[in-house]
Amino acid sequence: MIEKTAPVPAKQKSILNLLFGRALSSEEDAKEKIGPAAGIPVFGLDALSSAAYGPEAALTILIPLGVAGVAYILPISLTIIVLLGIVYFSYRQTIAAYPNGGGSYIVSKSNLGERAGLLAGAALMLDYILNVAVGISAGVGALVSAVPALQPHTLEFCLAILFVLTVVNLRGVREAGLVFMVPTYLFVGCLSGLIVAGLFKTLVHGGHPLPAVPVSRPGPAMATVGAWLIVKAFSSGCTAMTGVEAVSNGVQVFREPVVKHARATLTTIIAILMLLLAGIAHLCRVYGIAAAPPGQPGYQSVLSQLAAAVAGRGFFYFVTMSAILTVLALSANTSFADFPRLCRAIAEDGYLPDLFTIRGRRLTFSYGIYVLAFVAALLLTAFRGVTDRLIPLFAVGAFMAFTLSQAGMVMHWRRSGGPGSRTSMLVNGLGALATGVTTCVVIVAKFTEGAWITVLAIPGLILLMSAVHRHYQMIVRETDCRRPAQLNDIVPPIVVLPLQRWSKVAEKALRFAYTLSHDVLVLHIAPEEEGNAPAHDDLRSVWEEYVEKPAVKAGFTAPQLVVLHSPYRLVITPILQHVLELERKNPSRLVSVLVPELLERKWYYYLLHNQRATALKVMLYAKGKGRVVVVNVPWYLRS
Amino acid sequence: MIEKTAPVPAKQKSILNLLFGRALSSEEDAKEKIGPAAGIPVFGLDALSSAAYGPEAALTILIPLGVAGVAYILPISLTIIVLLGIVYFSYRQTIAAYPNGGGSYIVSKSNLGERAGLLAGAALMLDYILNVAVGISAGVGALVSAVPALQPHTLEFCLAILFVLTVVNLRGVREAGLVFMVPTYLFVGCLSGLIVAGLFKTLVHGGHPLPAVPVSRPGPAMATVGAWLIVKAFSSGCTAMTGVEAVSNGVQVFREPVVKHARATLTTIIAILMLLLAGIAHLCRVYGIAAAPPGQPGYQSVLSQLAAAVAGRGFFYFVTMSAILTVLALSANTSFADFPRLCRAIAEDGYLPDLFTIRGRRLTFSYGIYVLAFVAALLLTAFRGVTDRLIPLFAVGAFMAFTLSQAGMVMHWRRSGGPGSRTSMLVNGLGALATGVTTCVVIVAKFTEGAWITVLAIPGLILLMSAVHRHYQMIVRETDCRRPAQLNDIVPPIVVLPLQRWSKVAEKALRFAYTLSHDVLVLHIAPEEEGNAPAHDDLRSVWEEYVEKPAVKAGFTAPQLVVLHSPYRLVITPILQHVLELERKNPSRLVSVLVPELLERKWYYYLLHNQRATALKVMLYAKGKGRVVVVNVPWYLRS
Repeated sequence: MIEKTAPVPAKQKSILNLLFGRALSSEEDAKEKIGPAAGIPVFGLDALSSAAYGPEAALTILIPLGVAGVAYILPISLTIIVLLGIVYFSYRQTIAAYPNGGGSYIVSKSNLGERAGLLAGAALMLDYILNVAVGISAGVGALVSAVPALQPHTLEFCLAILFVLTVVNLRGVREAGLVFMVPTYLFVGCLSGLIVAGLFKTLVHGGHPLPAVPVSRPGPAMATVGAWLIVKAFSSGCTAMTGVEAVSNGVQVFREPVVKHARATLTTIIAILMLLLAGIAHLCRVYGIAAAPPGQPGYQSVLSQLAAAVAGRGFFYFVTMSAILTVLALSANTSFADFPRLCRAIAEDGYLPDLFTIRGRRLTFSYGIYVLAFVAALLLTAFRGVTDRLIPLFAVGAFMAFTLSQAGMVMHWRRSGGPGSRTSMLVNGLGALATGVTTCVVIVAKFTEGAWITVLAIPGLILLMSAVHRHYQMIVRETDCRRPAQLNDIVPPIVVLPLQRWSKVAEKALRFAYTLSHDVLVLHIAPEEEGNAPAHDDLRSVWEEYVEKPAVKAGFTAPQLVVLHSPYRLVITPILQHVLELERKNPSRLVSVLVPELLERKWYYYLLHNQRATALKVMLYAKGKGRVVVVNVPWYLRS
Repeated sequence: MIEKTAPVPAKQKSILNLLFGRALSSEEDAKEKIGPAAGIPVFGLDALSSAAYGPEAALTILIPLGVAGVAYILPISLTIIVLLGIVYFSYRQTIAAYPNGGGSYIVSKSNLGERAGLLAGAALMLDYILNVAVGISAGVGALVSAVPALQPHTLEFCLAILFVLTVVNLRGVREAGLVFMVPTYLFVGCLSGLIVAGLFKTLVHGGHPLPAVPVSRPGPAMATVGAWLIVKAFSSGCTAMTGVEAVSNGVQVFREPVVKHARATLTTIIAILMLLLAGIAHLCRVYGIAAAPPGQPGYQSVLSQLAAAVAGRGFFYFVTMSAILTVLALSANTSFADFPRLCRAIAEDGYLPDLFTIRGRRLTFSYGIYVLAFVAALLLTAFRGVTDRLIPLFAVGAFMAFTLSQAGMVMHWRRSGGPGSRTSMLVNGLGALATGVTTCVVIVAKFTEGAWITVLAIPGLILLMSAVHRHYQMIVRETDCRRPAQLNDIVPPIVVLPLQRWSKVAEKALRFAYTLSHDVLVLHIAPEEEGNAPAHDDLRSVWEEYVEKPAVKAGFTAPQLVVLHSPYRLVITPILQHVLELERKNPSRLVSVLVPELLERKWYYYLLHNQRATALKVMLYAKGKGRVVVVNVPWYLRS
C-alpha cells in the first residue's frame, strides 16, 4: 500500500479567487473558528433583527382596537420575554450537552428517534428558507418605505442582496462574521440609545413625554377587545423569537473553550433581545404609537415612528433606520450559516442527497448554499419581493423545532442520569411545555392565514427524505459485499466493435479490443445508396488485407465481420439488437461494446458530429440486462 | 463475413406515427415519386404565389407618381414576363441535362468549380429561409388586413402555420403534394376567373369598365417620372420570379419518364405565372388601381382592390381572398421541399455537418427541416410576423442563383459539345446574361433597402461552409490509414481503478480490470474526517482479505493499493494527477481508468448521485495526452 498526499492545486482560476477567496485546505479549518464577538453577528442577527418586526406584527393585529390596543402590547411583550427566558435556559443546557453542534435535528434524532429528527429537520429547513426570503424582503420593504422612490425596484434590490449574501457565504464563515459585525453592533447601539433616550424623556416629563415629531393618531376602534384577538396578537408577536436556536446549532464553530464561548454568545444575544423588546413595548405605550396598516400610502413602520418621536427626523433617525434596514436584510445570514450544516447532517444520515456533504473550496457546504439561494430567489420572485404573508408561516417551523429539541433534551437527561439531571430535566421539560403550547396556539391562531401551508409542507419534506433514505438503503443492500472477491472464474468478454470505415481510429479500437479478448466481432452497417463505387476506405474492400491477415499473423483469432443491412437507414437500432442478442445467448459472459470516439479540441466542433456514440451508449445501458459494458475508445484530434 | 438484414423495428411509438406517419423503409422510396398534377403544387406554389406580391411591390414604388404611375405597371410587367420566358427555356435545358436534380448548387459546382457552387448554395440557402418567413408573414398579413380583428395575433398565426408546415413536411413529400393541391388550383382558378371576367367587362364597356365597388383614388403625384424610379419598380417587381428554379432542383422526385414530367410541370407553372402577371397588370391599368401605402389604416392589397372592383365584395371575393391567403402562406412549402435537399447535397460534399445527410423515419432529411423551421421561427419572432422589409432581400439570392446556374450550363454545353450544343449554349448564355444584369440592377437599386444584408450574409455562409470542409478534411488526414492494422506489438494497458468502499460494484470492476491487464492499480482517497472508526466496508480494512489474497490465489498479480490524502477535500484532482503522471511515465502503454457507475432505473434517481464519474471522464479526456481510455463499468440496480 502506497500513501501519498495530493499536491496543492497548481493553478487556481483567478476570478474564482477574487469572488470567493483562495481554496482552503482542511487543516486551515481551525483558523476559521470564532469567539463571542464574531459569534453575536453570525448567530444573533436573526434573533436580534426579530425585534424589528415582532412587536410590529403584534401591534398590526391590535389595529382594530384603535388607541386602546396599544395598551396590550406591554403584557404581550412580557409574555414573550418570559417564554424567551425559559427557552434560554433550555438551550444553555443543550450547548453543554452537544458541544459538536446540538441543532434540533440532532437532539431530536438522538433522543426521540429518527422520525422526530426528520420532523425537526423538515421544520427547520422550511424555517431557514422562509427566514431568508422574509428577512431580505422585510429589509427592502423598510428601505422602500423610507425612500419611496426606490419602490418600483423592490424585487431587484431583494435579488441583489440575496446574491451578495450568497457570495459572502461561499467565501466561508469567518469573513461573514467580520462583514456583519459593524451593522449588528450599530443596530444594537442605535436601538439601545433610542430606548435610553426615550426612558430619560419619560422620566423628565413625568411619564408623558412630548414627541419630537407629532405621532399620527391611531384609527378609531372598530372592535372590542377579546381573548381571541389577544391570542392572535401574541402568535404574531412570537416571530420575535425566531432565530434563538442558531447558537446551539453551530457550537462547533466556536474556538476553545467551546461551551463557554457559545454560552456567552447565547446569553448576550438573549439579554439584548429581551431589553429591546421590553424597551420598544414600553415606549410604544408611553408615546401612544400604534401600527400603521401595511401596504397603505404613507405607511410608517413602528420603529420608524418611535425613532422619529424620540429623536426627531434628524441625523440619528437616519442612522438608526439604516442600521435597522441593513440588519433586517442581513438577518437572512443566520440561515446561510445554518441551513447548509443542517442539510449536511441530514445527508450524512442518508436522508438527503450525498452532494450536501461535499465541502467546497472554502470549506463551506456549497450545495446547501446553492439550494437555499435558489429556493429563496424563487420565493422572492414569486412574491415579487413582498413577503408579508410568509411571516406567520415561519413561526410555526421555529416553535415546532424548539419543542422537539427540548423534548429531546428531557429524554437525554432521563437516560444520562447523574447529579443535577433531575433539575436539567425540569428546565428542559418546562421549555418543551411552554414552546409546545405556543406551537399549538400559533398553528390554531394562524391556520387560515398560512400556517396550513407549513402543516402541509413539513410532511411533504419528510416523505421526500424518507424516499431518499430508502433508495440509499436499497443501493447498499444491493451492492454490499462482505466476502472476498471471486476472481478465479474470469472469462474474457465478447468484444463488439461497430465500424464504418477503416482508419487509424478503427485500428486503435481494434488493438484495444484484442487487449480485452480474442473474441472480437466487427459490426458494419452497409450503406444503402446503390450505384456508388466503394470508397478506398470502405471496410469490406480492405477487410481481408488490412484486418484478417494481420490479426492471424499476430497470433489472434481473426475478428468476425457482420454486415448489417438496414432498410430503415437506422444505425443504432441494428447494433443495439445485435448486442442484446449476443448478451442473451451468452449468459456467462460480458459483452463489451467498443465505440470509437473523436475528441475535438474545441467544444463547438462537436456540432459537426452526429451524437450516435452517446445515443448508442444510453440505449445499451437502458436495454441491457446487466452484462453490457460500453467502452469509448478515444481518438485525440491534434488540431 | 456474415450478412444480416435488421428486422423491422418491433414497436413504434404511436404518437410519432400519428403525427408523422409510420416509418418508411428505403425501398418504399419509389412510391413517393410524383407526376405533374402533384408537382405543380409542390414545386409551383412559391412561383405562382409570387403573382400575389410581385405586381404589388412594383406598384408600391410607383405610389409617388400618383395616378400617372399606374400606367407604368404594364411595361414593367411585360419586361418581367420576357425575362421569365428566357429563364424558362434556360431551365428546360437544365432539367434534361440533370435528371437527378440540377439545382443551382450542383450545376454551378460541377461546371464552374467548388467556389461558384458554394456561392450558389449560400445564395439559395438564404433565399429559401427568407422565402419561408416572407411567405408565411405575407399570408398572415393579408389575412389580417382582410379580418382586422385578428391583427393582434399576427405572430401566433405565423408560428402556428410554420408548425403545421413543419409537421406536414416531416411526414414526407407525397402527402405534402396532396395537402397543397386544392388551394393551389383554387388560387389559379380564382385569379384566372377574375382576369377573364375583368377582360370581358372591359370589352363590353369599350375599354372603360365601371368598378363594382368604388376604387379609392390614388394620391396626388409627388414626384415626376424618372429612369431610376422605374428601375427600382422593376427590381421590386422581380420578386414575382422567385421560386421558378424549384422544378429543376427536384427533378428526381418525378416518376418516369422523369424529364418529360418535370418539363411539363415547369411549362405549366411558367405559363400560368405569365398569364397571371399580364392579366393583373392590364386590369390594374384599366381600373386605375394603385397600391395603398403598406401599414396605413384601411390598407387594401392590390389583389383585394382588383377582386372587389371586378366582382364586388360578394361570395367570389371572399373565396378568392381565402385562396390567395392560403397559397401565400403555403408558398413557404417550396422551401421545405428544397432546403433539406440542398443542405444534404452540400453536406455530402463535406461543407455542412454530417447530420444533414441523415434521412429520417419518413425518408425526409429531417435536420434540414428542423434548421429551416428554427431559423424561420427566429426571423418571424424577431420581426413579430411582419417581414415587409425582407421581401427585397430574397430577390438578390434568387437572381444570383439563376445567374450562376445558367452560366454553369453554358460551360456544360461547351464541354459536352455534340449536335445542338451551340444552340443550347446560346439559350443558357442569354439566360445568364439577362439574369446577371438583373442581379446587378436589383443589388444597386435595393442596396440601401436591405440588399446589403444579403451581400454580407452570403460571404459569411461561404466562410462557414469552408471552415466546416477544412475541419472534415483535417479529420480524414489525421485518421486516414492505408495500411494493414499493426497488431503484433499490443501491450496490455495499466488499469487504474478508483475505489472508496468494498462492494459488489467494486468486485465487478476488479474482475473487468483483470480481463484487461494483470497490471491493476487501485486509487483510494482517504476520508479526512478523523475520529470515526473505519466502516465495515472501508477499503483499507478489508484489502488484504478481500482483494490481495483472492487475486494471488486466482493466479493474478495482486493489485497495488495507492491511498491518496487530499487536504483540499478534492476527489477528482488527485485521481486526475495520478493518472496523468502514469501516462507520462509509461510512454508505450495505454492507461485505462475504470470508473464504476450505478445505473438507476429512473432518471430522477441520478439526482441522488454526485456526478464525479462524468466530471472525471471529461477532465481525463481534456488533459490526457492520447493514451488514456476511460471505461465506465456499469452496475445495474434492479429496483
